[in-house]
Formats: sequence, structure tokens, C-alpha cells
Amino acid sequence: MTDQRIVAEYVLRTAQDPRRVADIIAGEQSSGTFVAIPGESAELKARSAARVDRLEEIDDSGLAPLPGATGDVSRSFAMTLSWPLANIGPSLPNLVATVAGNLFELREVAGLKLVDLHLPSAFAERYPGPAFGIEGTRRLANVEDRPLIGTIVKPSVGLGPAETAALVDQLCEGGIDFIKDDELQADGSHCPFEERLAAVMAVIARHADRTGRKVMYAVNLTGEIDEMLRRHDLVEKLGGTCVMVSLNSIGLTGMTALRRHSRLPIHAHRNGWGYLGRSPDNGWSYIAWQKLWRLIGVDHMHVNGLSNKFWEPDDSVIASAKACLSPISETRPDLVMPVFSSGQSVKQAEGTWKRLGSRDLIYCAGGGIVAHPSGIAAGVRSLREAWDAAMQGVPLHEAAAASPDLAAAVKKFA
Amino acid sequence: MTDQRIVAEYVLRTAQDPRRVADIIAGEQSSGTFVAIPGESAELKARSAARVDRLEEIDDSGLAPLPGATGDVSRSFAMTLSWPLANIGPSLPNLVATVAGNLFELREVAGLKLVDLHLPSAFAERYPGPAFGIEGTRRLANVEDRPLIGTIVKPSVGLGPAETAALVDQLCEGGIDFIKDDELQADGSHCPFEERLAAVMAVIARHADRTGRKVMYAVNLTGEIDEMLRRHDLVEKLGGTCVMVSLNSIGLTGMTALRRHSRLPIHAHRNGWGYLGRSPDNGWSYIAWQKLWRLIGVDHMHVNGLSNKFWEPDDSVIASAKACLSPISETRPDLVMPVFSSGQSVKQAEGTWKRLGSRDLIYCAGGGIVAHPSGIAAGVRSLREAWDAAMQGVPLHEAAAASPDLAAAVKKFA
Repeated sequence: MTDQRIVAEYVLRTAQDPRRVADIIAGEQSSGTFVAIPGESAELKARSAARVDRLEEIDDSGLAPLPGATGDVSRSFAMTLSWPLANIGPSLPNLVATVAGNLFELREVAGLKLVDLHLPSAFAERYPGPAFGIEGTRRLANVEDRPLIGTIVKPSVGLGPAETAALVDQLCEGGIDFIKDDELQADGSHCPFEERLAAVMAVIARHADRTGRKVMYAVNLTGEIDEMLRRHDLVEKLGGTCVMVSLNSIGLTGMTALRRHSRLPIHAHRNGWGYLGRSPDNGWSYIAWQKLWRLIGVDHMHVNGLSNKFWEPDDSVIASAKACLSPISETRPDLVMPVFSSGQSVKQAEGTWKRLGSRDLIYCAGGGIVAHPSGIAAGVRSLREAWDAAMQGVPLHEAAAASPDLAAAVKKFA
Repeated sequence: MTDQRIVAEYVLRTAQDPRRVADIIAGEQSSGTFVAIPGESAELKARSAARVDRLEEIDDSGLAPLPGATGDVSRSFAMTLSWPLANIGPSLPNLVATVAGNLFELREVAGLKLVDLHLPSAFAERYPGPAFGIEGTRRLANVEDRPLIGTIVKPSVGLGPAETAALVDQLCEGGIDFIKDDELQADGSHCPFEERLAAVMAVIARHADRTGRKVMYAVNLTGEIDEMLRRHDLVEKLGGTCVMVSLNSIGLTGMTALRRHSRLPIHAHRNGWGYLGRSPDNGWSYIAWQKLWRLIGVDHMHVNGLSNKFWEPDDSVIASAKACLSPISETRPDLVMPVFSSGQSVKQAEGTWKRLGSRDLIYCAGGGIVAHPSGIAAGVRSLREAWDAAMQGVPLHEAAAASPDLAAAVKKFA
């Protein structure tokens, strides 16, 4: 009955006896506590105790232990714990308290990363998964057989509704597939949500009439739940085809509430991911974390980008993107579009294509488009050309020799 | 117009020119990006750019920089940034994306902690704060002039509704003030929420009839928003006086939805805090983090406890508890009851009293009560006696000499 157990994989660092520490963690996260208690009978433990399913030594980083950890020299272990589903039922909020609750704070723990999750099928029965995913996004954006070329409105914050719409006009003119708000742009008094949305959608509709293809605009509706649902309905009413939210801002239950209500693709921004995932021996791996949001049902997940402006190595970015394109289970794959973003320009197209081995992605360049020396439309065209060349196996410098826009972009960004 | 700016204080570690790095962070979190962009005019920057208000070198930990950071030897700086309120308006979800978004991931950042927040009064106008707080909690629990003596149902998970009620019966018999579910106990099939609540409330009502004082039961209603609101109403209907939620499980918007609906004190559990706060140079300080939840309006906040089973030093625990008891602003203090918990027993009462200098707290012992050698009622009595002694300035060993229950507890736990 493995389908009746919740399984979580960790990397544990400890300077103590690893078996004892694994037992302490399993106890803390189920029926035990710091002292033996009369009620913890053998029968109760059989019913509810967490189990250490694997504990195997792996290479240790040699880094300093987390503060307050007992002992100096740590070793590292691949540790798998499992819990009876009956402890909590298929509830993601309560799952998080179980697999990612107090355990990070134990003094016996010198480091702990939650690296993967395997959930009983009851979770997939409870949570709907993406309503659109890759196929639905392609259908609405009317883009086949290549990545969606996207951009982030830049400057991130400060433009008013009319200025934003004017920028969108140039982007549409240039042939963009996808436009998103920056996560800093929400509903400030200089650029109220409703005014921005109305101004942008009018421009998008005009271009759709001209081209027969509607640019997908992921408008940032992050806010309280009532605001998000109201804004969603307005997006739908004005013909919009996407909504964006900041995951760490709204939390799991806000996302579930939005997903249950939503009739549009949900573009999921991971800002704040650094405080969850950057520490080498504390917190979450992206592999584990993204499964929660896919089960709830987002459609696009940010994964950073190659040679990004952030700290993350390319290997980690590619692993995240591949995770988004790997089925959670056979019956409920819940695939989502990985969104490449952060310092992206023409220079990363070839590498992204070669390393990911898929065209199912959204490739977002902000400065990489609006800072193009020949203007925004040239910025968009150059990105399209960079991707066409990459997918046809034409080296970037060769393609650039045949296109002034691409040549200018290569010179500026590469 | 300082009331029109959002202010966030950080500790920044970097191996680069600190002024340049502070400017990069301010740019990334407002109108800038990795490349100069045409739209970022002087006028737009004046309207929307984040400002570096303070940058002052402080002692550095000498720890290894976060992965991917440029440079080896870091220095540490107290850095204060501010943003125009107009960028986002008084929205906590969007505040989090602004003050705690992408910045943690910058490669120039070798370490970054968000240590405090100062928000314009518009936030207090938008978010209601605690409906009960210290006064309301004391009134409902009918406890004056001393801490609420509390416990966590143990074993944390595994007891059925009848077993839980039987334990509660013994706790009420022993004179407990406050009982909470463990955060692992939610709505599993062995102990469904509604059955547990009904069984426990029947016991609590019976004792209330006997004593004229109703024990406060913080039942864990963590779940999706519709579940939480439904469960809240059931708690109220059955005469309950408190509800408990796991903050990191539900997220900010779920808490706002619950608070808007709630007519009972909200007991806020911080499990998962370790992945947000334990890393010395990544993530949140408790001082900054707790302000978000108090603004929304929780009534009790977990702060760990002295000599706890976790990693946290006593100084940090006391600083957290004092933060909960310090006004957020003069007009909207939003004080909440700090909840001491984690390996607590008779042995920490005296130190907690001496160091906190306040009786406004909930003191929770789980194993410290149920594992008492003479049983649960003796466990409760011994804790009451330990606190009475502490507040009267009687040393623990003297008080224990006069009480067999306390003497047994001292022997077992101290």
C-alpha cells in the first residue's frame, strides 16, 4: 500500500549518530517528542509514526553547520521519511506542516534540504492540476512548434497605464507572443490594475484584429483573494488570456482559491525563491517545491534562465525546467510551461535549446528587448531570429551575419 | 512624508563595492534591471525608484558566502531601503514581492537578511490587526495576572477523538488554562476534525459548568480556505474560544481571508520557521516576519521557548517574545500573546519570567505535562506552582521542597 504513504526525500547533515537523528526527526514530525510519553503506545506508533525508509551517507559539503547545531564536523545523508496518509489526509497545507515543519529547527540538524516529494494519488484526486498547461497555453497564444517569445514590462514599475500600453503596442508591432507584468507592478496608485489592464487589452485587441493572433498578457493580479478573483473576472471580460501571481506572496491556500475560480492560465512567479532555496543546507529544493503548485494547478512556472543575473548555476536552472516538463505521475502528469527569465537575451537561446531539448517553454527577455539599440520591435525580431537559428542548428554568429537586428543584439548583449 | 514610504532594514553581506551592490538591489526591486533601459527616465525614477537610506559597515560573521556569490571575502552592512507607497499601495502580498522578492538571488549578494519593516499607516488602515490580542484572550480564558498555562495534545498525532477527549478531561481536571492541538493533528481519517472538536468541546463544557471557567482550546483548523471558514463556524457553534492555524501552510492571503471571517482568537503556529529564519545570512528575521501576521490580525504568535529542543539561543527567543509585546505603532500597537513552546517544563518558568519581565504569555508544555511521573493532573499543578513561585520570587528548589508534584517534575525534567 505505498499509495497510502506520503514520502519525502531530504539531504540531512548532522554531526550526531545519523540513525538516532533520523529517528528524532521522524518522531518530532509524528507521534514523538523530546521525552517518552505514556500515550505513545506500540499500536499508536504503528498507526501514525513516521518511518525512516532510507538513510545513506553521501558526500558532505564541508560547510559550517547551521547555527545552534550540536557538534562540529558534519556528515551528509540521503534520508527518506514516510508517513501514513491517514495522519493528515490529502491536504497540501497540512502536508507542508508535516514534511517541512519544525524539523528544520532541531538542534541535531546541522543542515536539512527537502529535495523531493512523492504523494499518494489521493492528492491528485483532491487537487485539479493545470487547466491549460502546455497545450492550452499554445492554443490560446496561437504558437506552435517553438517557444513563446516573451517579455517583462520594463521599467518594472513606474510606467502609468498609457505608457504601459504604448510599450505593449511596440511589442505587439514587433511580433511578441507573450507579455508579463513585472512582479513589482501590481495595483499602485500610479498604475492601477484596472486602468492598466484596460489600456493594455485595448492595444492587444487591436493587434489581434490585425494579425488574427492574440498576444498573451500575464497581468499581475497578486493581492488578497477577493481582489484576485474580481481581477480575474475582469481579465476574462476584457478578453485577456492569462493571469500572473507571486506564489510566495499569496501562499498555498490563496492559490487553491484562485485555481478553483480561474478560467484562464495561471502564470506563477517564484520571487522570494532565494530565501527558500538558495541556502545550500536549509529549506527546499525547487524539485520538491514546484510539485505543490503544479498539483494545485498553475500553468507556467518560473525557473530562472541560463547565464542569469542571479546566483544560480545553469545546471540547476536546467534541472528545474526539466522537472516542470516531467510527469508528476503517469495518470496525472501536470506538465507546466517552464518560464526562462532573468537577464535573458539573444545570447542564451542556443544554449537553452541545446540543454533543455524541448521547445515547450516561455522565453522572457525584459532589458534584452527594450534595450535593443534599434528599438523594441527590433528587439523582438532579434529574439525570434535567435530562437529560429538555434532550433535549425544555425550558430548564432552565422544567423547574425544575415540580420542587422540580430547582429545589433549580439553586439549589445553577448 | 515618511508615512508615504515603505522602509525595510537588512543585513547585507557582499564581497563587492557595497554602494554599487546596494544600488543594484534597489534597482532590481524597483525600476532598474541588468541593463540600462530607455524608459527609466529621471522623472520615472523620482516617482518609483527604491532609495538606499542607510549603508553602514558592521561586524561580519566570516562564514562562507551563499553559493554563486561573486567574490570570496565578504563584509557586512546594515542597509536600509525605502520605496514609495505608491508603487504597490497597502497590500501585504505585494509588499512581500517588493521587500523580499528577487533580491535574495542576486549574485552580488553573499548574504541577505530582512531584519525589520516599517510600514506607512495605510497598511494599518487596510488590515485590522488582532481582534482579541492579550486582553481578549485573558477575558475568554478567564485568567488574570499570570501566564496562561497551556499544553499541546501529545502524542502529537495518532490519538482518536475519544482518546483526545479523555486526555483533555484529565488536563481540565488538573486545572489547565489552554490546550492546543499539535500542528501535525489536522483532519486525518483517524482523528477527523469535526469528531475531535465535538468530543473535546463536550468535555470542556462539562468542566466549565463545574468550575465556571472555560478552558481555551486552540483546535487546528489549517486547511483550504473554505474548510477553515466552515470549521471556524463549527468551533464557534460548539462554544470554542480559539482556532489555530499553521502560518506557512496557509500563507498571507489565506490568513487575511480567515481573519476577515473570524470571530475567535487566532493562535498562529510558526512551524517551518526554520527554513525562513535559521540560516544566518539568508531569509527573514522573526522581528520583520511577525509584523505581517500581527497586521493581518493573529492573536497569539509562537516564539519557541528557553532551553528549547530546537537550535535557537535564549536571547533570540526573548527578543522574539518582546517583539510580540512591543507596539507596531502608537496608534496601532497590535500586541499579541507570545506562545512559549518546545521542550518546556517547570524548569524554564523562573528564567522566562525573569528575562521577559511580563506575565502576558502562553506557556505551553506538552511532554512536560503528560510525562509527569504522577500523571497529567500533577503535571498541570506542578507547572502552575512553578509559575506562581517564579512570580513571587521563590526559587524553584524552595518551592519544590513544599510540593511533591513540583518536586517530581523538577526531578524528571530539570
